[in-house]
Amino acid sequence: MANQKFGAGIWHFATYVDRYATDGYGPPRTLIEMIDLAGQVDDLSVVDINFPFADPALSFDAVGKALDRNGLSVIGITPEIYTRQFAKGAFTNPDAGIRRLANEMCNDAADAVRHFGAKYVKLWPGQDGWDYPFQVDHRALWQASMDGIGELAEQNPDLQFVIEYKPREPRVHMSYDSVSRTLLGIEKIGLPNIGILLDFGHSLYGGESPADAAQLAIDHGRLFGMDVNDNFRSWDDDLIAGSVHPIELFEFFYTLRKNDWEGVWQLDQFPFREDSVAAANSAIDFLKGVERALDKLDLEAMREAQSRHDAVTALNLARQALFSSF
Amino acid sequence: MANQKFGAGIWHFATYVDRYATDGYGPPRTLIEMIDLAGQVDDLSVVDINFPFADPALSFDAVGKALDRNGLSVIGITPEIYTRQFAKGAFTNPDAGIRRLANEMCNDAADAVRHFGAKYVKLWPGQDGWDYPFQVDHRALWQASMDGIGELAEQNPDLQFVIEYKPREPRVHMSYDSVSRTLLGIEKIGLPNIGILLDFGHSLYGGESPADAAQLAIDHGRLFGMDVNDNFRSWDDDLIAGSVHPIELFEFFYTLRKNDWEGVWQLDQFPFREDSVAAANSAIDFLKGVERALDKLDLEAMREAQSRHDAVTALNLARQALFSSF
Amino acid sequence: MANQKFGAGIWHFATYVDRYATDGYGPPRTLIEMIDLAGQVDDLSVVDINFPFADPALSFDAVGKALDRNGLSVIGITPEIYTRQFAKGAFTNPDAGIRRLANEMCNDAADAVRHFGAKYVKLWPGQDGWDYPFQVDHRALWQASMDGIGELAEQNPDLQFVIEYKPREPRVHMSYDSVSRTLLGIEKIGLPNIGILLDFGHSLYGGESPADAAQLAIDHGRLFGMDVNDNFRSWDDDLIAGSVHPIELFEFFYTLRKNDWEGVWQLDQFPFREDSVAAANSAIDFLKGVERALDKLDLEAMREAQSRHDAVTALNLARQALFSSF
Amino acid sequence: MANQKFGAGIWHFATYVDRYATDGYGPPRTLIEMIDLAGQVDDLSVVDINFPFADPALSFDAVGKALDRNGLSVIGITPEIYTRQFAKGAFTNPDAGIRRLANEMCNDAADAVRHFGAKYVKLWPGQDGWDYPFQVDHRALWQASMDGIGELAEQNPDLQFVIEYKPREPRVHMSYDSVSRTLLGIEKIGLPNIGILLDFGHSLYGGESPADAAQLAIDHGRLFGMDVNDNFRSWDDDLIAGSVHPIELFEFFYTLRKNDWEGVWQLDQFPFREDSVAAANSAIDFLKGVERALDKLDLEAMREAQSRHDAVTALNLARQALFSSF
Repeated sequence: MANQKFGAGIWHFATYVDRYATDGYGPPRTLIEMIDLAGQVDDLSVVDINFPFADPALSFDAVGKALDRNGLSVIGITPEIYTRQFAKGAFTNPDAGIRRLANEMCNDAADAVRHFGAKYVKLWPGQDGWDYPFQVDHRALWQASMDGIGELAEQNPDLQFVIEYKPREPRVHMSYDSVSRTLLGIEKIGLPNIGILLDFGHSLYGGESPADAAQLAIDHGRLFGMDVNDNFRSWDDDLIAGSVHPIELFEFFYTLRKNDWEGVWQLDQFPFREDSVAAANSAIDFLKGVERALDKLDLEAMREAQSRHDAVTALNLARQALFSSF
Repeated sequence: MANQKFGAGIWHFATYVDRYATDGYGPPRTLIEMIDLAGQVDDLSVVDINFPFADPALSFDAVGKALDRNGLSVIGITPEIYTRQFAKGAFTNPDAGIRRLANEMCNDAADAVRHFGAKYVKLWPGQDGWDYPFQVDHRALWQASMDGIGELAEQNPDLQFVIEYKPREPRVHMSYDSVSRTLLGIEKIGLPNIGILLDFGHSLYGGESPADAAQLAIDHGRLFGMDVNDNFRSWDDDLIAGSVHPIELFEFFYTLRKNDWEGVWQLDQFPFREDSVAAANSAIDFLKGVERALDKLDLEAMREAQSRHDAVTALNLARQALFSSF
Repeated sequence: MANQKFGAGIWHFATYVDRYATDGYGPPRTLIEMIDLAGQVDDLSVVDINFPFADPALSFDAVGKALDRNGLSVIGITPEIYTRQFAKGAFTNPDAGIRRLANEMCNDAADAVRHFGAKYVKLWPGQDGWDYPFQVDHRALWQASMDGIGELAEQNPDLQFVIEYKPREPRVHMSYDSVSRTLLGIEKIGLPNIGILLDFGHSLYGGESPADAAQLAIDHGRLFGMDVNDNFRSWDDDLIAGSVHPIELFEFFYTLRKNDWEGVWQLDQFPFREDSVAAANSAIDFLKGVERALDKLDLEAMREAQSRHDAVTALNLARQALFSSF
Repeated sequence: MANQKFGAGIWHFATYVDRYATDGYGPPRTLIEMIDLAGQVDDLSVVDINFPFADPALSFDAVGKALDRNGLSVIGITPEIYTRQFAKGAFTNPDAGIRRLANEMCNDAADAVRHFGAKYVKLWPGQDGWDYPFQVDHRALWQASMDGIGELAEQNPDLQFVIEYKPREPRVHMSYDSVSRTLLGIEKIGLPNIGILLDFGHSLYGGESPADAAQLAIDHGRLFGMDVNDNFRSWDDDLIAGSVHPIELFEFFYTLRKNDWEGVWQLDQFPFREDSVAAANSAIDFLKGVERALDKLDLEAMREAQSRHDAVTALNLARQALFSSF
């Protein structure tokens, strides 16, 4: 595991706005500036990039050069299907014309995946859902959620599409809200190239055990990607990984290891008020400790304790392995 | 809908203990006493009965007579797979002998269903789950959750088994925790006689929209039963239906009506400190208002508003129909 | 009560950005446009205005004219102590220079209050708090929270300052997080011109009973203002008042009536995807029903039921009075 | 700090019932058996004992002997003001006769404190509160909450009374629900011998930062006691301390150390399905690591980071000190 790769959503290195600080938590940054910041992180290999680029004049070449000089490659492309025009949904928008725009943007993102040799198009349909009781016809909304992604997967059989589910925000309720709902939809669509990108924090604040969610996605053959962060279990705070729930994060990675799941360990953090390079380094330092702890954990003793549902023994084993790795 | 039937879990008329009031919130009641209380409710037709009876000496005949004199019939039988011996799980217990006991108890419950001409065996595997990170092997736990219920459904192809999912309590996390997880499991088991009993409150405090959950279960052909109550969205408070979330309760019943779902409207309330007959009457009075409101609601206008995701119009229509029915 | 006045935060009529829809949920609106929209609401008398105005060239006179032609007056001025420069706090910022800026901006807001003949400066210190364990010295932070507001109240003894507490957002935890904490701080500061503006939704999602919170603030002589909206109890969704929790909203207003609390019933809603005039009208229609229900409610019977903590009787009385008023 | 004392509520060593496992999670244990179990824990010095004893025939002498042979002393006595007769409240019960009974039971508990040379009477008014909107007159309820405890403190000026606040359970809302509310009440009562027993888990699931809550209670001179455990932030799970939130637990003890707060570190855990001695040992092992970490933490660097609200630096310091102590 000495070669464990680390990655991050490029937005980790952006500045942010919200409904109060409408002037932003810092001056806007160009994509190139973000990539150069990502390059300053001690051990980062890949990034996930939003598309279309904020600056439409920016060429693939210019982005490629910036990535190269920072030793970064692209793991995924995230189409921005959650901006103003998609305020009432991308795949589920009541307006067929907007649904068409979403499809086109995602197809363009697929081309970007091919250009950069990335692994997948990442779909985060954050505006697909509802806010009020009685607002939508739930059958129609869910059908449209599945149809929109199924169409993309059929149009691009050479690529993987990963769905990043999330309970809520910005909608009060998102249609792909949980690991089970997403798997149910994926099974119904029935195509091989649709999977899940499991965000640790989304799982946590949705009331799941992220370890259980990962196991379920793996058992359905659909865990295509993952990212980590932390929160206080009631919102997608996107804090530094390990800052609040180190033991459940350790169980999450233990589950990946146990299943021989191999892939990049990515960050999805929003350091609103922090130095973004320092925040990434802090998280990756923690993740390297987790790696050491996985090597140290007595897997056989853990298996034995779990076979008896013996929480105290299992906890003692996990705690000792994790903490003593720092 | 003048013939809408109302029902209740017979435990609505019990007294309760918890970890603090270990002497109970009132003197213990026999099953016969509970049935006689249920008979005092203004408009109650069916009950769901726990099995085995608290008093093992009580005969089917004695129970049948009590039901008859109160004009009640049995809709479901709930095996008590959550008492001391099942503290670490019924279907997922680490001890194979305990799993066997659970199977036997449920088969006995199936016989009670046949005896009383009830509709289903209701499975609420409240002790099947986990409390701590690292406590269980999540794959094994979920497999056992499915195997245990699949075995029962195979052994009793003439009967329906309904799963009442719930996020948590008494376990910190239940394996059948949500509508999607339960449907995913049911589809995997692949038998026609397993369905969902959707508890409005469990759905609500699990972060679901109960209306959306009902639609999803219906679309999978698995909504076999339902019950209602209310809570403050963070726990299974089992309060009087409509006391906190009348509008979402109305949307839930609107969804049933829209899909021509026909079945008993049941109560699953725990009136710890209230008069249980008064609590049932209060809920049923509210539900009758909901019935009237469904007759009054402009379905076409609602459909039109929903086709545009027009929350304000939809809300105004729903609010006016519901409130003006009282 | 035929003369009950209704009000709204002027931001009800703005468009919004968030961290995803960075291009906003609609084209930006000027303050004058917002005021003209507010004027279209059927029954709106007063507004609360952010300060400084988004357009620094806008004069008091121009704003006053717009208000006049729409029949609106100003109830409060809300200084924008939560924008970029205050990202790490206004009153609690680690930089003394920023704390000074916050003080100056609030003093300017005080002048605006005087100019418009408004009732209060509304302080919503949304960036004062913390995000991470160990981030702040909690004693120092709380002391600064009190000092900053105490200084303002001393500098402007002729005016009222109201604190709008809120559990969180945009900080993970706000220092003025609850009614009790805020009262504790106000009592410690010990000045007569500091009170609470109780936001129904903040109270609700903070786990309070808004009725209880209102009573407590009244009993301390500190309920200086209020506004309403609704949410799903886990976040400040700022939905249309009454859309989710009509019964608790009714209890809130019942508490105000019972205590002869007189003041404007204000809206603090964020209709991200809705027509803002329609959203305001929907809420005010509901509030007028609440008014009628208060006139109809049998206060003596309610008192009697509450004296016995008789929830079923109290609920039945409230439900009947409220619903039958529509 | 080599002499740090550890304690536990004696109920840690009981077996439990809940509303489902009405036959209990194990055979009932006598108080003497519980004390003998407590004596098996590696490093336990004091216990908090419920009163009256479950077995009314049990004498002070017999209890004293059992304590002596296990090397235990008594830190507090917890009157059982939450059993059946107090179902609708102890200090706030609508029946004056029941309120009198509560007072008498607490005075008897005061005598037990004197007999055992304990430190305080611990008041946990778990049934004082409400379940439904409109159920109670909030002013009257809060007044009674204060009056009942004020009366006890006046009757027993030689003793300390500590209030263990909690957001909810078994009531849907407890009147002493948070640190701020409790301090507000204590200040209003105005007696020196009433303080707070801060339960880490209650604070956590009430949305507080336990470190901030401790600081606030200390700054008001009212932190008389504390106990720890863990949970998933939505309920009082009473899990093993440190099993879920080790970093916030560390911040809590850091706050005590920083303020030179000296007292017993107590456990309030409910090991429903675990070996109670193993669960206590696991927690105390963790707490000893916390002690070592406090000795190791660079307090000056932490102060400096906090003076800048520098979350990343503060987190890195805390994490390294804590984890490397195992």
